[in-house]
Amino acid sequence: MKLATLRTPAGTRAVQQDGDRLVDLGYDDLGAYLAAGSPAAPAAAPTYPAADADFAPVVPNPSKIVCVGHNYTDHIKEMGRELPAYPTLFPKFADTLIGAHDDIVKPAETDALDWEVELVVVIGQQVRRATEAEAEAAIAGFTVMNDVSVRDWQFRTIEWTQGKIWDSSTPVGPYLVTPDELGGVRPALRVSTTVDGEVMQSDDTGTLLFDPVALVQYVSTIIRLNPGDLIATGTPAGVGHARDPKVCLVGGETVVTAIDGIGACVNRVVKQ
Amino acid sequence: MKLATLRTPAGTRAVQQDGDRLVDLGYDDLGAYLAAGSPAAPAAAPTYPAADADFAPVVPNPSKIVCVGHNYTDHIKEMGRELPAYPTLFPKFADTLIGAHDDIVKPAETDALDWEVELVVVIGQQVRRATEAEAEAAIAGFTVMNDVSVRDWQFRTIEWTQGKIWDSSTPVGPYLVTPDELGGVRPALRVSTTVDGEVMQSDDTGTLLFDPVALVQYVSTIIRLNPGDLIATGTPAGVGHARDPKVCLVGGETVVTAIDGIGACVNRVVKQ
Repeated sequence: MKLATLRTPAGTRAVQQDGDRLVDLGYDDLGAYLAAGSPAAPAAAPTYPAADADFAPVVPNPSKIVCVGHNYTDHIKEMGRELPAYPTLFPKFADTLIGAHDDIVKPAETDALDWEVELVVVIGQQVRRATEAEAEAAIAGFTVMNDVSVRDWQFRTIEWTQGKIWDSSTPVGPYLVTPDELGGVRPALRVSTTVDGEVMQSDDTGTLLFDPVALVQYVSTIIRLNPGDLIATGTPAGVGHARDPKVCLVGGETVVTAIDGIGACVNRVVKQ
Repeated sequence: MKLATLRTPAGTRAVQQDGDRLVDLGYDDLGAYLAAGSPAAPAAAPTYPAADADFAPVVPNPSKIVCVGHNYTDHIKEMGRELPAYPTLFPKFADTLIGAHDDIVKPAETDALDWEVELVVVIGQQVRRATEAEAEAAIAGFTVMNDVSVRDWQFRTIEWTQGKIWDSSTPVGPYLVTPDELGGVRPALRVSTTVDGEVMQSDDTGTLLFDPVALVQYVSTIIRLNPGDLIATGTPAGVGHARDPKVCLVGGETVVTAIDGIGACVNRVVKQ
C-alpha cells in the first residue's frame, strides 16, 4: 500500500494509490489518518490522478522528527569516526519539511548546502519504551527524505541542530510504503543520491548499524512516539561535505534521492 | 500582564491573572490565544481562583522549542569552554514539557538527572529573518523553564539531543509575563535554582551573552518562529554535573527554579 498527502485546491488530503488514481482517505493529511487508526477508504471516495500529483510532505505536521547520524558503516568512516555504541540523534521541526518535488531553496546565508538521502520510518501508533514486537507493530511504513544540511551552520558550534532545521529545506515523500511491500520492517533496499545524474550516494538500507526496529525502541525509551512521527535513519557515504574536493549545492542542480521500492524525492535547487 | 494555561475539569484554558483570580481568555491554551493575536478577555468571562491553580505547560504544544547552551559566561567557564561566537542550539519537543508544579519523574534509565534554570522567550507573532525591531515586537513575554537534563544520555554521543528531550521531564511556567512588567525585552533579573532549599544556581539574566532579541533574530534566520514557540536562553553556573563532586537528582528532592518578577517552577523529584 502506498499512501501520501496530496495538495489539492481545497487543501491537503490523505490519499492511497490505486493504479493511476489516488483515492481520498477522508482525512486532511496522513498524520490525521494514522492518528485515526488507518481506516479503510470510504466507499465512493473522490479520486485524483496520480500522474500530476502535487505532494505535500508525506506527514506535514509530525509532533517530532528525530534524525540519526552515523548509521551506515562507510559514512561513519568517511567522516573519520569510530563505530558508535549508541545512535546519535538530532532534530528537525515540521516547518523544516517540504514536498517530495518542491524546490530546495538555497538560503542566502550559506554556501555549504549538502544532500543526505535517508530511509525514514513513519510511526503508525503511539509507543513508549517499546519492546521489539511493539516497535515492529508501531512502524506504519517507510518513506524517503533528503536531509538537506547547511554545513557551515551545522559546524558553527558543537551541536548540529542549527544546520539541520532550516525552514522549508527538507523534502520527504512522496509516498509512505507499508512494510508488506518492502520485505518487512527491516528493509534491505538500494538507497541513492544523484546530482544532475551523477551518482553521489549508493548503499543498501540493510547495512544500517541501528535498524528501524532498534531505532523505534531506542527513541521510544526517551520519548513517546506518536502516529505520524518520523525517524530518519541516517545517510550513507558520499555527501558533498566529505568529498575531496568538497561539493556544495549552489543552485540550478536537480537532486534525486531515491530508495528502490519506496520512491524518490526529485528536487531542483534554486537560489533564494 | 501574567498569562497562563490552566488545567480545568473541562480541559486546559488560557487565562490572565487579575488579583487572586484567573480570567478565562476564551481559548484552550496560550498557544491558541497568541496565534489569535492576543485579544482582550471577553466580557463576563469565567474566572478561576489563582490560589489552587493547576498549571499546564505555559504553552502546551509549541511548534518548536529551541534551547541555547553556553550563554552565561560563568557557566561556559565551569564547563571548560571558550566564549562562543555563535549560540549553540538544541531542541526539545512538546511531549517533553510538564507543568510548573508537576512532579519530575526520574526515569529508571538514568542515574544522572540534573537541573538547569532558564529564562524562556515566548514568541507572540510569526517572524522569519527578523530585524532587531521585528524581534523585539515578536516577544510576547518571558517564562521559566527547568531544562531537566539526563546527563549520561546527553553525553553518550556528540549530540546532546537525547539527553534533553525526555518525555514529560521539563517544567515550564507557571506564567508568561509580558515585557512591560520586566523592564523590557532584555530583562535583567535574578535567576536561581534551589534544591531542598540549598542555592545551586544564582545569576542575572542581564549577563546573557546572546540576549533574547539577538536569539530571536538568530533562530528566525534559520526557521520561522510561530506564536507560542519557545526559546530557552541557557543556564547559569551551578548545575549538578559541573560540581565537584557531581550532584544528581535521585528522587525525593524539591527543586525550585525561579526568576524574580516572573515566577518559579516548584517540582518534587520522584522515582519512576
